[in-house]
Amino acid sequence: MDFKEKLSNKSIEVEQYLEKYIEKKDNLQFRIYDAMNYSVFAGGKRIRPVLLLSCYEVFDSSYLKAMPFACALEMIHTYSLIHDDLPSMDDDDYRRGKLSNHKKYGEATAILAGDALLNKAFELSIDESLKLNIDNSLILKALSIMSNASGTEGMIGGQVVDMFCEEKIVDQDTLRYMHKLKTGAIIKAAASIGAVLGNASQKEQKAIETYAENLGLAFQVRDDILDVIGNADKLGKPIGSDKENKKATYVSLIGLEESKLLEEKLIKEAIASLSIFENRAEFLKGLANFLLTREY
Amino acid sequence: MDFKEKLSNKSIEVEQYLEKYIEKKDNLQFRIYDAMNYSVFAGGKRIRPVLLLSCYEVFDSSYLKAMPFACALEMIHTYSLIHDDLPSMDDDDYRRGKLSNHKKYGEATAILAGDALLNKAFELSIDESLKLNIDNSLILKALSIMSNASGTEGMIGGQVVDMFCEEKIVDQDTLRYMHKLKTGAIIKAAASIGAVLGNASQKEQKAIETYAENLGLAFQVRDDILDVIGNADKLGKPIGSDKENKKATYVSLIGLEESKLLEEKLIKEAIASLSIFENRAEFLKGLANFLLTREY
Repeated sequence: MDFKEKLSNKSIEVEQYLEKYIEKKDNLQFRIYDAMNYSVFAGGKRIRPVLLLSCYEVFDSSYLKAMPFACALEMIHTYSLIHDDLPSMDDDDYRRGKLSNHKKYGEATAILAGDALLNKAFELSIDESLKLNIDNSLILKALSIMSNASGTEGMIGGQVVDMFCEEKIVDQDTLRYMHKLKTGAIIKAAASIGAVLGNASQKEQKAIETYAENLGLAFQVRDDILDVIGNADKLGKPIGSDKENKKATYVSLIGLEESKLLEEKLIKEAIASLSIFENRAEFLKGLANFLLTREY
Repeated sequence: MDFKEKLSNKSIEVEQYLEKYIEKKDNLQFRIYDAMNYSVFAGGKRIRPVLLLSCYEVFDSSYLKAMPFACALEMIHTYSLIHDDLPSMDDDDYRRGKLSNHKKYGEATAILAGDALLNKAFELSIDESLKLNIDNSLILKALSIMSNASGTEGMIGGQVVDMFCEEKIVDQDTLRYMHKLKTGAIIKAAASIGAVLGNASQKEQKAIETYAENLGLAFQVRDDILDVIGNADKLGKPIGSDKENKKATYVSLIGLEESKLLEEKLIKEAIASLSIFENRAEFLKGLANFLLTREY
């Protein structure tokens, strides 16, 4: 199997488990399950869960043990998109070419569907991990990483910084701080939880986290580049929206060419940090290279 | 110490720990901490955390071990109030006589402050319980109860039923189902978690849960009664708003006198279920009687 086939298999497995974990119920509150399912199955790339499974796989090939946390992170990612799209936030009517959650179900249901997905991430990672007989102390360590990464010193904090600093971000340090929280924290958590559940040594844990930090930043730089040179159809959103919204980006701060060089440098560093695993980390290296060349 | 003094001491301790757990930070995302603090310290009665501590106390007098989960439930309760008050939900400008969160901080921050409080409930109950050397399996059991109680088959589910069945709730069964989820689930979880952390036997666990189920329903019936005969100043909200909003309530369904009888019956059943604890549950009995006579 080549890299792309492996990637596709993992994504498909993630989809199947997501479907299993968010059942559709036939009770008085069925609408909330509809709204949750709508956004979870709106065409996400499943990067976070695939990253988590692949980091776990460095230590243990039977990665289904890591599936509850993998799907939980995807739910947290999805809830953040639903709330970000709300009229009082970014006010986006479309997401990946489909109506955003509040356009489809109304604002009240969209807020509750977001809340419910964050909540479900915890229900799921707790209850399903317990069923898989994972060591209790590892489950708690993973839960601690996940909850901190999605909180006010992680993803939510990043959203707040983004909101209040828009138009004001003039230096790379602030931009980097914002991204480190807003997107970087969950990407790092994915890798970190994979390593924790895989019972990594301290040195291995550190190597995986360095990989993920570089990957997360490269991912953001790539996003900024694609907003300038990308293909609107592939991206599912218009090109040039950052500039139009006067958003500070790597491209606006250091230029397109420098951004490309930065992205390459970060991916090289990510891959270099995996050297201690020798050939056990081939998929993670492939994933880094894949993200460097992604067009959507 | 009489009952009221004990109750007041517990509430004060809860306040102190809530302050400790949500620090104000001086970083770029400080506004989110301000907004979280505003609603957490807006004059709540702290019934859920006090109930949790008091149920734990039946099994172990040093109840500080249960404080992280007690405060976590109060944060979940507070987040639900912030989101319920939003313009697209109940659109309330005031809560307990103070501006609601979105009126004070704007809608975007209020949504994020709610998200952040739900998230913080998990960060806190995980990280702080680990520091207190509580048995890992008990922490996970308590986390499972908490996350399920606040989710789509608990509190969020109840809010959805309330939203979509308003004006349509015509029978007591549907009203009971809605309240069982919307307010009952967290009240039951408070009691249940207290018993779990206190290492209750199965029989003791059941007794505590029966107490809490009756208490939770009585609490709701009392709310409906107070909306008719209460004092607007003490309640911090106008009287008669349920009728004005055409909300189905116990009073509208079975009348005022029947509602009072139902409330008394529920409180009696709650107290009766505590008999196996003999004099170890005096405070819980006091709490039930106190809630029966509350005026706000």
